[in-house]
Amino acid sequence: MLVPEHWFTEVVGTEGSALSLRIRAKLHEERSPYQTISIYATEHFGNLMVIDGCTMLSSRENFIYHEMLAHPVLYTHPKPRRVCIIGGGDCGTLREVLRHDDVEEAIQIDIDERVTRLAERFFPELTEANTDPRATLRFEDGVRWIQAAARESLDVIIIDSTDPVGPAEGLFAAGFYRSCHDALATGGLLVQQSESPLFHLDVIRGIYRDLKAVGFSAPQTLFFPQPIYPSGWWSVTMAAKDRAALPNPRPTGSHMATRYYNADVHRAAMAEPAFFQRARREWEAAPARQ
Amino acid sequence: MLVPEHWFTEVVGTEGSALSLRIRAKLHEERSPYQTISIYATEHFGNLMVIDGCTMLSSRENFIYHEMLAHPVLYTHPKPRRVCIIGGGDCGTLREVLRHDDVEEAIQIDIDERVTRLAERFFPELTEANTDPRATLRFEDGVRWIQAAARESLDVIIIDSTDPVGPAEGLFAAGFYRSCHDALATGGLLVQQSESPLFHLDVIRGIYRDLKAVGFSAPQTLFFPQPIYPSGWWSVTMAAKDRAALPNPRPTGSHMATRYYNADVHRAAMAEPAFFQRARREWEAAPARQ
Repeated sequence: MLVPEHWFTEVVGTEGSALSLRIRAKLHEERSPYQTISIYATEHFGNLMVIDGCTMLSSRENFIYHEMLAHPVLYTHPKPRRVCIIGGGDCGTLREVLRHDDVEEAIQIDIDERVTRLAERFFPELTEANTDPRATLRFEDGVRWIQAAARESLDVIIIDSTDPVGPAEGLFAAGFYRSCHDALATGGLLVQQSESPLFHLDVIRGIYRDLKAVGFSAPQTLFFPQPIYPSGWWSVTMAAKDRAALPNPRPTGSHMATRYYNADVHRAAMAEPAFFQRARREWEAAPARQ
Repeated sequence: MLVPEHWFTEVVGTEGSALSLRIRAKLHEERSPYQTISIYATEHFGNLMVIDGCTMLSSRENFIYHEMLAHPVLYTHPKPRRVCIIGGGDCGTLREVLRHDDVEEAIQIDIDERVTRLAERFFPELTEANTDPRATLRFEDGVRWIQAAARESLDVIIIDSTDPVGPAEGLFAAGFYRSCHDALATGGLLVQQSESPLFHLDVIRGIYRDLKAVGFSAPQTLFFPQPIYPSGWWSVTMAAKDRAALPNPRPTGSHMATRYYNADVHRAAMAEPAFFQRARREWEAAPARQ
């Protein structure tokens, strides 16, 4: 039996599964205005951030998620100069974005400043790029920020959200995607973390439907392992403002010291498993307003 | 807290992680001459087989593992007529092998007949091909069987083993690989389940070292999600008896009703994550007898 004093456990009630990590200690816990944030020291995964009972990231394996959220979209855009990250308060995505020399400006908008302050304290390696002069950190509602953003002012929008419940619910909605579409410049790209291919196919279907409804094109899901999220398997979904197809990825800079991403992995992540391909073809053939 | 009456939990002590699945009931448990086999009815994963406390397969997600163990190697061999499966007592790999019209003979050698008998009872969908006239099921020591096999009598050897402890330990050893090499015909291929890329890089390194030591060439690891195994991420490693490089995969038959595998997924699974590529280059550059 997993003694709660020694293990953090996230239960996914709807799927009857749970993941546990053995902990040395709970280092911190607070209720921010938006959510409960807990930090644990684990035995084998380094530090662990948990929000409202859901694992967000550990020192050991966050590189996969952050690299796969940042690099595929940035290597697909021909010249990603102005990038915004909605959510992403732990700053791991921002750090990966700032590895790209093309990026002139990277704005992170997370509603909860406490996530960033705790990342600075417990995951300093993720926040090391925060002082980059190209970076701006804003702590406000990402939905409203995007609504108010100048039209056609961004090249890439990265939606690094928590699950589609609670504070992040508005980040999985057609109205939000419409604002994103308006804020993107010609040739602009959006990418959204899109949950587990095994557990949340309905969420991915909803993302495709909503993106299409507001004018996005060429949706493409990328698949990758995510050892501490439900099912151990995760995805991001990319789409274009106004292109019939996504451009081929540009070559990876040789100075890019990634741990998971490379050009082969990028192409590979786009391969759709048979069941996903069938599901996507079915939902793309269905009437638009289902 | 996960009440043991309602959850099956596999703890990976060395990694400080645990996966739990919510159960309706324990359907069966027995101590065979080799191991303890338990069957649970889960809430969301169908039936679950557990051997010596480790999850083996569930009804819900075994398709990924079985398809990735069987199809890449069989579509890589130009004409896989004689196939043997070492281990694989649940018969899920055998079923996938028998989907290939090229296969004239498929022999499964598992040391523990009880695994197969329980699969027939609790996972009948996996054993549905057992009556195929091309199939032979043998219950004996796979290491000895391969030692005694006629030289150059097999086109493909699939090692569908449990973890490299207990009954399966001998299936991760150079002596066993040497017998496999002898038993393979010209152009023959071997594939071995090779554990988690995140947790067991040392196991994969050992497989490469031992395969090379006995004359195998062109080792290639394939990566895929494995939602109920430690880390949620798994691998198989393929190698050739006598080829400088693996042939390109043959086109997938259109009648092949897979749920995970397709030609794109096959190519994609071969993409090495950056950290794996670096590790492999390091160990391949190291002296042979490390």
